[in-house]
Amino acid sequence: MTIIKMSQVFPRNEYLRRLSAVKAEMKRREIAVAIVTVPANITYLTGYTSKSGYVPQGLMIDLEDQEPTFFTRRMDAPAAKHQMFIDNGHIIGYPEALIANPEKDGYDVAIDFLMDHHLGDKRIGLETSSLPAATVQKFKTRLPLAKIDDFTNCVAWIRGVKSDLEIALMREAAANTDAGMLRARDVIRPDVREADAAAEIIAALTRGVDNKPSTDVSGFFLCATPRTGTCHIRWTEDTFQSGSQVNLEFSGNRHGYTSPLMRTISVGQPSDRLKRIHEGEVAGLEAALEAAKTGAACNDVAVAFNTALRKHGFEKESRCGYAVGIDWTEPTASLKEGDMTILQPNMTFHLMLGNWVDDEFGYVISETFRVTDLGGETFSKFPRDIITV
Amino acid sequence: MTIIKMSQVFPRNEYLRRLSAVKAEMKRREIAVAIVTVPANITYLTGYTSKSGYVPQGLMIDLEDQEPTFFTRRMDAPAAKHQMFIDNGHIIGYPEALIANPEKDGYDVAIDFLMDHHLGDKRIGLETSSLPAATVQKFKTRLPLAKIDDFTNCVAWIRGVKSDLEIALMREAAANTDAGMLRARDVIRPDVREADAAAEIIAALTRGVDNKPSTDVSGFFLCATPRTGTCHIRWTEDTFQSGSQVNLEFSGNRHGYTSPLMRTISVGQPSDRLKRIHEGEVAGLEAALEAAKTGAACNDVAVAFNTALRKHGFEKESRCGYAVGIDWTEPTASLKEGDMTILQPNMTFHLMLGNWVDDEFGYVISETFRVTDLGGETFSKFPRDIITV
Repeated sequence: MTIIKMSQVFPRNEYLRRLSAVKAEMKRREIAVAIVTVPANITYLTGYTSKSGYVPQGLMIDLEDQEPTFFTRRMDAPAAKHQMFIDNGHIIGYPEALIANPEKDGYDVAIDFLMDHHLGDKRIGLETSSLPAATVQKFKTRLPLAKIDDFTNCVAWIRGVKSDLEIALMREAAANTDAGMLRARDVIRPDVREADAAAEIIAALTRGVDNKPSTDVSGFFLCATPRTGTCHIRWTEDTFQSGSQVNLEFSGNRHGYTSPLMRTISVGQPSDRLKRIHEGEVAGLEAALEAAKTGAACNDVAVAFNTALRKHGFEKESRCGYAVGIDWTEPTASLKEGDMTILQPNMTFHLMLGNWVDDEFGYVISETFRVTDLGGETFSKFPRDIITV
Repeated sequence: MTIIKMSQVFPRNEYLRRLSAVKAEMKRREIAVAIVTVPANITYLTGYTSKSGYVPQGLMIDLEDQEPTFFTRRMDAPAAKHQMFIDNGHIIGYPEALIANPEKDGYDVAIDFLMDHHLGDKRIGLETSSLPAATVQKFKTRLPLAKIDDFTNCVAWIRGVKSDLEIALMREAAANTDAGMLRARDVIRPDVREADAAAEIIAALTRGVDNKPSTDVSGFFLCATPRTGTCHIRWTEDTFQSGSQVNLEFSGNRHGYTSPLMRTISVGQPSDRLKRIHEGEVAGLEAALEAAKTGAACNDVAVAFNTALRKHGFEKESRCGYAVGIDWTEPTASLKEGDMTILQPNMTFHLMLGNWVDDEFGYVISETFRVTDLGGETFSKFPRDIITV
């Protein structure tokens, strides 16, 4: 018996539109077959969110074929049949003997497929920056007549402009993010363990709201006194104290789509230093959103932020944001000075204003937004305050 | 001001012992400097668990230097100072301008360091299988006098045999895993949403037991009817029904160390088919644990499992386990026929007996164990039953 197909997250014509955009880019580069291996790109093109990407798998897009063909470990093929919009005949489950096998692996199955379909002498696009060097070499060695081109970030750039259907999912993710932040406001108290607060917040993110639970746990960071100068620590076994500061960064998740948010919590009244940087950063945040209009460059958003922040006597070294969507960060546009990417409607960014001032002190606030003709439109409804508990 | 060092998870001499083992392997290979970039290997050698590995970072181990040197994005340096056992002077935070910069990235900082320390003409070990091809090429181009050798999996093999201190952490992780499974038994009921059950289980895993909470969310999979033929789906928005089967796989986490466990839940009485495969798999599980003695080969464990399972009329295609520890799977020994790795005391494995029989039906059970002279000693205390709720 064949596993049933799940109720699809997007209609078929949405996926075909995305594939058409990828195929147009392939034509421009004279690529006959692209092999997409970055999990977020596979999700984008098929709806697949199962976590099988730790072994070789990939989506082979042939210009001559309407639907792509997915190769994956045999045990993961049922999940692909269940989740992907494509026909089950386009899903190849390769044998378990290719796992932990130094001689031959899943990429050999892809190479065999190309040879069987007379594609072994064509121009082939690989996302080389996420493939081991030995894998790229294997394609070259086993397909000596092929031309191997780098297709890194081509799908990621196409993902950058969201459809209204994708924006709707990001709003759902944002509502779940907000539910997590509300829960944080309720549970962070003196003598509560960081781990226990994390447990409550992650549970709230997962349950979500509006009968639309999160479908995955995304990145989650809780950096509390004396660790507010750090940014990527999960949590510790310590308890909050009166006077503690807690920097939070997390996101809900809807079918892979995220909408991250950062807020700073003060247990007790915030210090003057914290209030001063908060004022500067919120001024920068508002300036950045106003600048994030269709037709502006990423650079302009960063300049607006930096100018406003400097007026308050602060500097931020790191970029003030990046493209965001499936699996959080997209490896393309950055909100930083010098990035001349032109903003288009429905590009989405995490305006990430974490500012780790020194080893011992950092402050965080952020918004996820979409570009509109009038500026950045944020997804979260959460107030832009220091959360005082 | 400098961030305080956290109370260390392991004593300094434990880390130095691990580094000595790596240096012995480097000497054997005549490598002067190894650059370790796999996050689990960095955790093993330093205690660092902050999640900064999505941008270039690495641990440079110089045979002539007692402590290694870590290069990381500047915003992540405070977490490294806080968590790593090494001196702060051995932590290099590179500037933000190297992020999302196509010309120059964090690996250039490592190359500069090697040149500054007169190591640019030595034999250098890189974990090439986890580095982009362009990065390996950059080392070769910028260090034309160096010999670049592959150091992939060398640290992972050393990690394979745990110290008693590591075993103690894995037992703590296992106790948290069991707390999650107990919670699953309590919350999985008809009409409960899969996402709500996941929220409760993940929260229980995070809180942990014995005042030793989990320090991260590890992999989490909940594949329920009609998806028991899949293995890597997180959960869905569906509700459980009377007659549903729920396949669970997850782990607690202590400072990176995991102890995964799988169990199958039946909502209502299990079917005869489920009971039959359960009996076969438990027989295989017991045979495998008995075979997992010091001096046996991985192959022998797999043969013992497969022989016992076949007597019950079943086959399992996938390997019946793999080395396990920091960040779950280790990319080294597999419990499969033909793997002649000899078992040593305190090697640890996830005896992973998930059996996805067809697209629509799978059954899961597993144990994490350490090798002893008397056979595999399991960490979980959870009964090996079909959990009937």
